[in-house]
Amino acid sequence: MKAYTTYKIFATAKQRELVNITEDVAKAVAEAKIREGMVLVSAMHITAGVIVNDNESGLHQDIWEWLETLAPFRRDYRHHRTGESNGDAHLKNLLVHHQVILPITKGKLDLGPWQSVFYAEFDGQRPKRMVIKVMGE
Amino acid sequence: MKAYTTYKIFATAKQRELVNITEDVAKAVAEAKIREGMVLVSAMHITAGVIVNDNESGLHQDIWEWLETLAPFRRDYRHHRTGESNGDAHLKNLLVHHQVILPITKGKLDLGPWQSVFYAEFDGQRPKRMVIKVMGE
Amino acid sequence: MKAYTTYKIFATAKQRELVNITEDVAKAVAEAKIREGMVLVSAMHITAGVIVNDNESGLHQDIWEWLETLAPFRRDYRHHRTGESNGDAHLKNLLVHHQVILPITKGKLDLGPWQSVFYAEFDGQRPKRMVIKVMGE
Repeated sequence: MKAYTTYKIFATAKQRELVNITEDVAKAVAEAKIREGMVLVSAMHITAGVIVNDNESGLHQDIWEWLETLAPFRRDYRHHRTGESNGDAHLKNLLVHHQVILPITKGKLDLGPWQSVFYAEFDGQRPKRMVIKVMGE
Repeated sequence: MKAYTTYKIFATAKQRELVNITEDVAKAVAEAKIREGMVLVSAMHITAGVIVNDNESGLHQDIWEWLETLAPFRRDYRHHRTGESNGDAHLKNLLVHHQVILPITKGKLDLGPWQSVFYAEFDGQRPKRMVIKVMGE
Repeated sequence: MKAYTTYKIFATAKQRELVNITEDVAKAVAEAKIREGMVLVSAMHITAGVIVNDNESGLHQDIWEWLETLAPFRRDYRHHRTGESNGDAHLKNLLVHHQVILPITKGKLDLGPWQSVFYAEFDGQRPKRMVIKVMGE
């Protein structure tokens, strides 16, 4: 069994942003020299997520509107008594989750034709880490 | 370490359907001859999901109603400007997720007494792939 | 490759409760003597979940309110025709998911600075199992 770990730091220009990281994950898989296994892609902050979906800008706008409907920004979250203002980002993280695990088959990320991987930033404009961990043989 | 990969193609009769795949996953685990490890069950399309829940038809109706409340069909998703009409299926996929990873212990799927695995089709009536990848020893 | 499996039984005092299990997961990783790998933490019941978020009591109250908004208790779930009254707990489980998979690097749980792991009980006051499975080398 082999394992390979790499970290990526994001400091998005906007507070909320979807960053296509499919190539970053594919690169980590290639560097790991693992032919059969799995790769874990996981935000290390609790106000960001990782998702798999379509790389289509209209859909991305739909996703942001939908996230705002289900986990809206509000001033009155109890969490804000700590001085924070990002309660909605915590709930958005719970909604879409902070991680995915993807199959590696014959040395390649084994994704479907429209599956792209995105880092979903809900409270950006500051450096935040994500781990990519490849495991297999 | 051993790895075993198999694919299943679904072409559901209905547009939306929950398909019990517990036996398919158990069969893949048996074929893999892996006694300790994990199995990844992952939809390869972005308009389908994989969930673990109860095999109870009343609950399944509750789940469909609930999904329609939180990620409703709408004509006016921006994604539909591409000619698609399945924006809600993308959001339902984000809500329930496209994958689960299940433990394998002593050669068997290590599920709780009421845990069944389901492929959740949100935009069916056409062939769509799912991957089952077993990893362990 | 090595695997290590342990189970934890919860019987929460309250019907709904977030239990911080970060130390339990770290202990399992230490016992597994695995330096590079992954750990799966998975509720074996379909009315409980496992989440990663902040260990901040105000946020936890926000999370409970939010879960009740998106997956409310209702008398009229079809699932209740079976005699159950926990339909909302099934939907809350689908919303937050029953599992996480966490990286292990250099012998330690590789979490971000504010990431804590919680068992989320949605229908407690009775014994329920969770599995922790460590895999790696």
